[in-house]
Amino acid sequence: MLVLVANLGSTSFKYRLFEMAEDGALDDLSDATCLARGAVERIGDAESKCTVQIGDWSDELTMAVPDHGVAVETCLTQLTHEQHGAIEDASQVAAIGFKAVHGGRISGVFVVDDEVLEAMAEMNAAAPAHNPPYIAAMKTLRARFPDLPLVAAFETDFHQTIPAARKEYAIPRQWSDEFHIRKWGFHGASHRYIAFRSAEILGRNDARVISCHLGGSSSITAIRDRQSVQTTMGMTPQTGLPQNNRVGDFDPFALPLIIERTGLSLDETLKTLASQGGLLGLSGRSGDIRDIEQAADEGDAQSQLALDVFIEELRRHLGGMLVALGGADAIVFTGGIGENDQRIRQGVCQGLEELGIRIDSDANETLRQQAGESGEASFHADDSKTQLWVIPTNEEVIVARQTIHAIKSR
Amino acid sequence: MLVLVANLGSTSFKYRLFEMAEDGALDDLSDATCLARGAVERIGDAESKCTVQIGDWSDELTMAVPDHGVAVETCLTQLTHEQHGAIEDASQVAAIGFKAVHGGRISGVFVVDDEVLEAMAEMNAAAPAHNPPYIAAMKTLRARFPDLPLVAAFETDFHQTIPAARKEYAIPRQWSDEFHIRKWGFHGASHRYIAFRSAEILGRNDARVISCHLGGSSSITAIRDRQSVQTTMGMTPQTGLPQNNRVGDFDPFALPLIIERTGLSLDETLKTLASQGGLLGLSGRSGDIRDIEQAADEGDAQSQLALDVFIEELRRHLGGMLVALGGADAIVFTGGIGENDQRIRQGVCQGLEELGIRIDSDANETLRQQAGESGEASFHADDSKTQLWVIPTNEEVIVARQTIHAIKSR
Repeated sequence: MLVLVANLGSTSFKYRLFEMAEDGALDDLSDATCLARGAVERIGDAESKCTVQIGDWSDELTMAVPDHGVAVETCLTQLTHEQHGAIEDASQVAAIGFKAVHGGRISGVFVVDDEVLEAMAEMNAAAPAHNPPYIAAMKTLRARFPDLPLVAAFETDFHQTIPAARKEYAIPRQWSDEFHIRKWGFHGASHRYIAFRSAEILGRNDARVISCHLGGSSSITAIRDRQSVQTTMGMTPQTGLPQNNRVGDFDPFALPLIIERTGLSLDETLKTLASQGGLLGLSGRSGDIRDIEQAADEGDAQSQLALDVFIEELRRHLGGMLVALGGADAIVFTGGIGENDQRIRQGVCQGLEELGIRIDSDANETLRQQAGESGEASFHADDSKTQLWVIPTNEEVIVARQTIHAIKSR
Repeated sequence: MLVLVANLGSTSFKYRLFEMAEDGALDDLSDATCLARGAVERIGDAESKCTVQIGDWSDELTMAVPDHGVAVETCLTQLTHEQHGAIEDASQVAAIGFKAVHGGRISGVFVVDDEVLEAMAEMNAAAPAHNPPYIAAMKTLRARFPDLPLVAAFETDFHQTIPAARKEYAIPRQWSDEFHIRKWGFHGASHRYIAFRSAEILGRNDARVISCHLGGSSSITAIRDRQSVQTTMGMTPQTGLPQNNRVGDFDPFALPLIIERTGLSLDETLKTLASQGGLLGLSGRSGDIRDIEQAADEGDAQSQLALDVFIEELRRHLGGMLVALGGADAIVFTGGIGENDQRIRQGVCQGLEELGIRIDSDANETLRQQAGESGEASFHADDSKTQLWVIPTNEEVIVARQTIHAIKSR
């Protein structure tokens, strides 16, 4: 079965095309083949760029792509290229799966219908950057491809197993019951992949694993029996760790003071926290950790502080996960920063010997060389109770499998 | 030297009268004697109640006390009672010390002058329930007793040693530099007392101690070398652990959704979170943990959830402290809940053997009997790496000593 897994931006459409068995188990990803990947950027501009890569062949078109409907149409044309195409006919694509962000009362994997879109729209105020472009694109695609099922695999799905005691805010009951304000958590597809893959590597399904997804946006999830039992993001993807340009945990009771001093509205203040905060705000320079590390190495104190805050917040949240699990069998780093930034991994893991965590700093430093093609490698000392790993994540293959399950169980 | 240590509410004035050596070290509290304690309640009402206790003698007056100036005057009259008084003349009182809450740019211990009052006023928007009544009372007292030094011992003082990497939010630099928005921390006098006293009990000043001040309001502080190195409260005393009726950590990006649904203003929403949240919001019943435990025992699911959330949030933050310290030599419980609630202590400490924490559940359950008059007792297992203690706090004696230091170093 063929499925497109889409990554939507308000002016972009990135995808991978997977071939997967119809009847595979949710946790068996071994039969997945990625046939192609592509992207359409600058949708709505006079000149959009449409790229595709199929095996060794790649193609790039520049043309006007007015909306996401035309974007998908263009992708399908490229995928069915007479000579190099991955498929013969666009109708072979069984569904498009989306990593949808916030469905509020709807958390799971669903074929997109009016109710799903309505539930997403109810959360627009909580996910203003994410939900509206998804809803708009899904509506366009439903109109353009009425026979092609769209599947929303919500990023909150994996966290449904978190017990209520770690999910509820201490707010009036009405706000949680009626407005669905609780710690939903995000990055579900990535943490689910780490749960499955780390169980394979450790050779046991009952392991206690702390999954650190660190990248442009970051979260940590505590996993037991391959299920999420605690996570750092909350009602929105803004809470938890500091992000590239987003604040992370913040005291809402500081808002009146900011509003009083700046004259900004609440929405403007939140928008500032979500675009001028994080590593960018701290460093006053960049939201890209590579730039910040370079600046810190050149002696920039603000950049050093940004790195230190990021590490300390990682450690603070890691501690919460350690206690939730009563100790960890493994800590896994993934995502662009988790996989590539040995300095951050070192900062997070060092000095925790009394808690059973003993890093092999040399192995951490030379990890990329050891890892080989899979990118997977460990960097704990032999006598560490807790294993330390880098495992590249694969959110798309999770969404592909979930998408097939969803359309089959319709 | 005699000092009054005051605990101010908007309509109340509680105090203790201490006698202490003029030249004692900040960490030597052995010379303190509490000569009297008293309270004036319902200031501004037609009938205020003024109580005092001096040794075995106690007195209660009911009279009109229009403001805090008259309240202090009445207290001084009671303290100089001809027959039972603690002192002969009101002029013997050298100063009044206050546990002031939020001075923003001013954090430490200061004789109250115009600048201190101004710095506090700048933080009114961040501490609307705390700062305005303190400022009003201090102004009244300065006018009424121009020769009596007032000393503000800010609750943020003890946390000044927290490194910047654990103090700064990931916000635009201007907001931290100019508006003083950072994790100030509170309950400083209580955590400082625990730092000093636990060092005495453990017989070493370099211990790593986690101080859990749990009561009507709660916070946890990580202590190393008797200094604060991390704490749970943030820019305001609203952040961190859930409180009796206050939310604790919350996602500011959920506010627009609440405002959209309820029609409340931002200020009303925050006021609701600070008065209808916490254990009260979760249980839908009471903010008093004793009521909640009773209801939970009678089968009320919401009350059980409130207890579970409180314990899970305590554990989450405890984990952050464990990692900050790289392991703990002792965890100390104090405050009304910390000292008296064995169920909460059990919930927080259990299942952490792999992290070096082994509770003696029997000792925990029977702790009050073992503790004797001091109220101090341990409840860790013999083979626990981390000691577990209950130590009743004494914020007032800390403020008394700080007050003496402040007026002497003027």
